[in-house]
Amino acid sequence: MNDTPASPKKGLSRRGLLSLAGAGVVGAGLGAGASYAVAAAAPGHSGAAASYPFFGEHQSGITTPAQDRLHFAAFDVDDISRDELAELLADWSYAASRMTSGLGAGGYGPASGPYDSPPDDTGEALDLPPSGLTITFGLGPSLFDDRFGLAGKRPAALIDLPHFPGDALIDALVGGDLCIQACSDDPQIAVHAIRNLSRIAFGRASIRWSQLGFGRTSSTTRAQTTPRNLFGFKDGTANMRAEDTDQVNSAIWAHSSEGPGWMAGGSYLVARKIRMTIETWDRSSLREQERVIGRTKGEGAPLSGGSEFTEPDFALAGRGDAPLIDPASHVKLAHPTNNDGASMLRRGYNFVDGNDDLGRLNAGLFFISFQRDPQTQYVPVQLSLAKNDAMNEYVRHVGSGIFAVPPGAREGSFVGAGLFG
Amino acid sequence: MNDTPASPKKGLSRRGLLSLAGAGVVGAGLGAGASYAVAAAAPGHSGAAASYPFFGEHQSGITTPAQDRLHFAAFDVDDISRDELAELLADWSYAASRMTSGLGAGGYGPASGPYDSPPDDTGEALDLPPSGLTITFGLGPSLFDDRFGLAGKRPAALIDLPHFPGDALIDALVGGDLCIQACSDDPQIAVHAIRNLSRIAFGRASIRWSQLGFGRTSSTTRAQTTPRNLFGFKDGTANMRAEDTDQVNSAIWAHSSEGPGWMAGGSYLVARKIRMTIETWDRSSLREQERVIGRTKGEGAPLSGGSEFTEPDFALAGRGDAPLIDPASHVKLAHPTNNDGASMLRRGYNFVDGNDDLGRLNAGLFFISFQRDPQTQYVPVQLSLAKNDAMNEYVRHVGSGIFAVPPGAREGSFVGAGLFG
Repeated sequence: MNDTPASPKKGLSRRGLLSLAGAGVVGAGLGAGASYAVAAAAPGHSGAAASYPFFGEHQSGITTPAQDRLHFAAFDVDDISRDELAELLADWSYAASRMTSGLGAGGYGPASGPYDSPPDDTGEALDLPPSGLTITFGLGPSLFDDRFGLAGKRPAALIDLPHFPGDALIDALVGGDLCIQACSDDPQIAVHAIRNLSRIAFGRASIRWSQLGFGRTSSTTRAQTTPRNLFGFKDGTANMRAEDTDQVNSAIWAHSSEGPGWMAGGSYLVARKIRMTIETWDRSSLREQERVIGRTKGEGAPLSGGSEFTEPDFALAGRGDAPLIDPASHVKLAHPTNNDGASMLRRGYNFVDGNDDLGRLNAGLFFISFQRDPQTQYVPVQLSLAKNDAMNEYVRHVGSGIFAVPPGAREGSFVGAGLFG
Repeated sequence: MNDTPASPKKGLSRRGLLSLAGAGVVGAGLGAGASYAVAAAAPGHSGAAASYPFFGEHQSGITTPAQDRLHFAAFDVDDISRDELAELLADWSYAASRMTSGLGAGGYGPASGPYDSPPDDTGEALDLPPSGLTITFGLGPSLFDDRFGLAGKRPAALIDLPHFPGDALIDALVGGDLCIQACSDDPQIAVHAIRNLSRIAFGRASIRWSQLGFGRTSSTTRAQTTPRNLFGFKDGTANMRAEDTDQVNSAIWAHSSEGPGWMAGGSYLVARKIRMTIETWDRSSLREQERVIGRTKGEGAPLSGGSEFTEPDFALAGRGDAPLIDPASHVKLAHPTNNDGASMLRRGYNFVDGNDDLGRLNAGLFFISFQRDPQTQYVPVQLSLAKNDAMNEYVRHVGSGIFAVPPGAREGSFVGAGLFG
């Protein structure tokens, strides 16, 4: 992180936004597709030095190549006014635009500025490169109650998620008025982002629940290798990729035709904290594990044959005319052909939250998906899985959230500004 | 991780140890200094491909260049016999020697072998390089009670830590019969190690408490830059370095002269989970923060002047004849000159365990130190800090453990074997 204060030195709140164009912040007005291409192609801009523009047609952190680490937080908004809510969102965008370009959260930085005031950045990212940091903001259904006069603005696609069979949700891990997804290849950078945005929100919003993820479980571009989840299997082989522009446009981005206009170019985020009973899984046979997933553990090939990226053949039968891929397997039930073609962009992370009283690792998958319409994309797939997935013996959904993710902001504006128009 | 089964295919328990020499496991009989030098100098053995030998004079993970991520676990041993305890330690060494060289925990691997048995590796590290993994085993004071006939073997240096003023220890985060410190530059690799060692211990030992750490807070070699803790300050500037061989020999390694003989070449590990009240810290002024630490926040220079590695001048006075470095500052109280020359090797990590009910990040420092004699090294320093450190307003010690860390094992043997001689 660069300790050089941005000029002008004053203007720590959203008023500073207007001066950002002159403050070394990169990436004006690029669409998400373009920003991804820039990041991938720019010489020297790989690894720790990778930097994605905050401003643009779409928010970054969606089709951006999935970074290795996550810090996600859902917030409750305190008893503040509509104007103060807008100011919070503006302050957040200002700080996010700085941090994603490697600057401190505020104009003074962690180590300079008035000695008798708290620093406007907490400092643990000082000396560190941005490491591909993206900060993505979302708005929960509860934000559209009567507190801020926004009830009439709630997008139809921002549904309340239904109860799914087997749900074991813990109240403290559900919902939230706002959310922030911070992704980076360096966990210290992701933690620094959530911490500073939480600090900026002091007295206006506070963390309701949060999650650290240490390993990505999906690829969002073709250049990325398929990672493994804590079942030890490759995850996200069939995930949508940023290069599939037709699919990205039709399945991820909200269009103005379906309204509301301020969400055009945005998306909808579903988060599910899925605890895995890994000790039980670890004592099941390799045969059972592969049956449950529907793929081989090593290569990740469908049990109908071929290699990782071979399309599964759900009709192909083996011994006794039974299909080689169990109809109750995860790959069968989650596949678009089983869900009227429904697909979504998955962007989840492995987590371990220590251990429980019985000495078992409190571990699992923090599922995140982006889609244009959760009602026709996430919900039918999850209903099908919740009813029939052989994997249900080994997982438990304990946390849940759905958020409208507004489009990216133009320089001089902030994410969510359209809501207050 | 290499999925090729080691030969012979049979022998998943400690019996396999004797065949490891022919199974591609690196690093026979090198001392820690030597192994560190090999790892640092070997062409292509940097970053993800880095691999440290498990066998040697000392256990790795002590003077090894501090890796970026940590998974630490303390275990309670179940109701097993002395022979079964020895067998558990042997099985652990066998699996550790495999995983640190990039192999699966067992001879079959996660994806091959008998289909009707659980795999002998959980699989999430398949395809991943060792990423500098080290696995370090320790023995807690409670292991030397009357259960295993080891009471007469307890090293004098393995004291019960005293109660320190201000301690706010939580029972569930204290003690343990055994501990494992897994460090790696890839958190998935560290998690994979603890998970598989916990799986191997099933029915013999279970996790009592555990901790993930996402960012190292110390350097253990001169080549490493000084990282920052969650106060935003550089941490470990004055830490001992592996290159200081005289100091390493006199301050870290147990000598045969002080007994017991089976601990010669070993060390003693102190772990302290230190919660930081970061929200309070973040609202204190930069002046207060620098006063508490005794160094500047940006450069990390002592407040008596100079740059990061300048020795602090505790006598130098400023305005009103007050010393420039507050006598209650952390740098003053922790400094060897204030502690009869006592020093230790620190190897701690930043952690965030989600948030508490009030929306505050549950964050802090997981302190780990290695020393030859905790009674004359860790204890006096911590007593001094606990009584007078200005930092106490912002920290709370909630977890604690002390462990004897036996010397490294020779090939064909296991860590702790000397205990059963």
